[in-house]
Amino acid sequence: MSAGAEHHVVIVGAGFGGLEAARNLASAPVRITMIDRRNHHLFQPLLYQVATASLPTSEIAWPIRFLLRGHKNVTTLLGTVTGVERDGKRVLLDGEPPIAFDTLILATGARHAYFGHDEWEPYAPGVKTLEDATRIRRRILSAFEQAEWETDEARRAEWLTFVIIGAGPTGVEIAGTIAELARDTLRGDFRNFDTRSARVVLVEAGPRILAGFTEDLSAYAARALERLGVEVRLGQAVSQCRADGVELGGAFLPARTILWAAGVAASPAAEWLEAPADRAGRVRVEPDLSVPGQPDIFVVGDTAFVAGADGKPVPGVAPAAKQEGHYVAKLIKARLQGKPSAAPFVYKNAGNLATIGKRAAIVDFGWIKLRGRLAWWIWGIAHIFFLIGLRNRLAVALNWLWIYVSGHRSARLITQRDPGRAPPD
Amino acid sequence: MSAGAEHHVVIVGAGFGGLEAARNLASAPVRITMIDRRNHHLFQPLLYQVATASLPTSEIAWPIRFLLRGHKNVTTLLGTVTGVERDGKRVLLDGEPPIAFDTLILATGARHAYFGHDEWEPYAPGVKTLEDATRIRRRILSAFEQAEWETDEARRAEWLTFVIIGAGPTGVEIAGTIAELARDTLRGDFRNFDTRSARVVLVEAGPRILAGFTEDLSAYAARALERLGVEVRLGQAVSQCRADGVELGGAFLPARTILWAAGVAASPAAEWLEAPADRAGRVRVEPDLSVPGQPDIFVVGDTAFVAGADGKPVPGVAPAAKQEGHYVAKLIKARLQGKPSAAPFVYKNAGNLATIGKRAAIVDFGWIKLRGRLAWWIWGIAHIFFLIGLRNRLAVALNWLWIYVSGHRSARLITQRDPGRAPPD
Repeated sequence: MSAGAEHHVVIVGAGFGGLEAARNLASAPVRITMIDRRNHHLFQPLLYQVATASLPTSEIAWPIRFLLRGHKNVTTLLGTVTGVERDGKRVLLDGEPPIAFDTLILATGARHAYFGHDEWEPYAPGVKTLEDATRIRRRILSAFEQAEWETDEARRAEWLTFVIIGAGPTGVEIAGTIAELARDTLRGDFRNFDTRSARVVLVEAGPRILAGFTEDLSAYAARALERLGVEVRLGQAVSQCRADGVELGGAFLPARTILWAAGVAASPAAEWLEAPADRAGRVRVEPDLSVPGQPDIFVVGDTAFVAGADGKPVPGVAPAAKQEGHYVAKLIKARLQGKPSAAPFVYKNAGNLATIGKRAAIVDFGWIKLRGRLAWWIWGIAHIFFLIGLRNRLAVALNWLWIYVSGHRSARLITQRDPGRAPPD
Repeated sequence: MSAGAEHHVVIVGAGFGGLEAARNLASAPVRITMIDRRNHHLFQPLLYQVATASLPTSEIAWPIRFLLRGHKNVTTLLGTVTGVERDGKRVLLDGEPPIAFDTLILATGARHAYFGHDEWEPYAPGVKTLEDATRIRRRILSAFEQAEWETDEARRAEWLTFVIIGAGPTGVEIAGTIAELARDTLRGDFRNFDTRSARVVLVEAGPRILAGFTEDLSAYAARALERLGVEVRLGQAVSQCRADGVELGGAFLPARTILWAAGVAASPAAEWLEAPADRAGRVRVEPDLSVPGQPDIFVVGDTAFVAGADGKPVPGVAPAAKQEGHYVAKLIKARLQGKPSAAPFVYKNAGNLATIGKRAAIVDFGWIKLRGRLAWWIWGIAHIFFLIGLRNRLAVALNWLWIYVSGHRSARLITQRDPGRAPPD
């Protein structure tokens, strides 16, 4: 590895990990190229709020090149990476010439996964991108619109049944927010039915919701959801998703809106690198986050598999990706200063948070566990604090305050397609 | 026309005219059905700000049923009207049973028109809907992204040339804002070129811009545009639009982004009614805005052709549509009280406003004409004042203040498609 201003670091993906790496390399004697197939960094932890019409798209996404504009050694390019030449040390792109690198950081993230049932995707969309979120928002709002037309009670009930598959933080947050939409926000907007008659069903194959939390916090969260009117169904695996409902352990549940929050698969980085991967497709990296046999290629974030201090894999959450991006930047800087060996990456768990509607949340910092309204405020402040731009923090805070006080939601837009009889995409 | 609570008024279209009619009929002894093919009312005068990344979509659009939630005699339905049975007095819908009416108000608006050249639409999109606006935003932002990749100077110049066809208020506003994007907002975000090298060309077939204003105001506006760096080309008709440029009076101007602001055509209401229409397809209504021979069918807004007091047609602007909606509601209420004859509709011109970037505007109230910074403040305050919800007024004001102070724009999102080499849709 040669030092000097010409050392070229290519970063693929401007999520939490890639962006953190770029920022921490900004003062180093390197030239950086940041490549992303989207022009915006996305604050994914709040994406479910776009999907449920609580926040507009522009308040959780910012142009990558705007975020990096102050770092003059960073060039941002909008492009789609299609592969990596490991030996030639070049990144391959769709429709553009390859780009050579000295060091490569792959931070290409994850998509939702259907465990071998990709044919379910049209019926049960997941929420990983802005487009996913506006699609889900369109589905949810269109279902209420269809219910207003419907004269047949059974068919109306189908339009008013929302099934969320997977009770991790995203599934719980979506279920809670749809329940609030039906109970508060939309109440009074329809003439032919009571929006409170909507059913929100949260389905989980495992024995409890929010399995990443302790049993008592997860039991509390389940009770909080039920108080909002959400039906929590545990130990039920989905065997079929269709346009008109889901099959749960043999029984059929008619529902016109099905949302998927049950699992993720890594980006194809492991395939590009022909590197060892775990079952979710994550690259099994070395303790210094480099690819086995490729010391100049690093993988960070949701597409990397690395064991934490406790032997358990580091979770696919924003703080972990940021810590990994930070670690790799530091390691590269040390190498350029002639210090090639590095201490292994150590994940520091900053705490675990999940929210249930606009009144309750659970927080687990390890040394203290909280639940209820105080936890909700901690959750809200933490999320606003970690939002990137100052202005967006203000805007999101204003939006939430507005929803909190008025119960109204500002972003109830059905866009992109004229909705017909069927749920539009 | 029979009076009583069962009298059923159907309104098609929840733009300014339809919404105003519904609100003014809310206290009358009628049952109202509002049908729109979108779920949101759009504040069209600010749509160009979404197209130029200054405002997010959710700040100029609100759910129709939310706006009408307090009026218990109004049912809102999301649906697409496909025709009208004049004699059977029913509205025909796509995929839903027909709806019978006692009185019908058609407020179905207008689309941009290409004067017999619909094949130009893919190359020169217009701006009438939220989708139009996000499409144009995507095109503008993607062009700068492509320029960052381009190594050939001539090709880069094509990506950095923006042609706006038509110099009415919308064309002028778009041209001024793109010039500001290039001069201020995006400056410093790119590494391979200076965004200030972008060319913004405003093309007008007529002899001057903003022909609806007096000659001195329109000359002032042209100078203000040129100060922003916009090239104003007068007396040049477009003879061809292509993916790589426009043909203007025989000469070819290479440009990768072409925007259409040159003309509108009315909705097909005249065809539905088999009613007399003008060249733009607007229904030639009676002085009381009813359809000739159909006293129970009214047409208001951009899809109606009616002469003002001065003999000139009432312009297709928001205040005119609102006045027409208000007039029709009053007329219907009078008829229900047994007062069938009405004074003809009279348009009151409340003033004419147009803005050029964020420093200059022109205002013509008839009795006084203003230009420059004071006019800009009047324009801004008037628009914020007429925005519907209080919260949105605050949010828009905040956004503008932010742009004004910082030069940043908050809504620079490329959404819906992965942009490749060609401008995506």
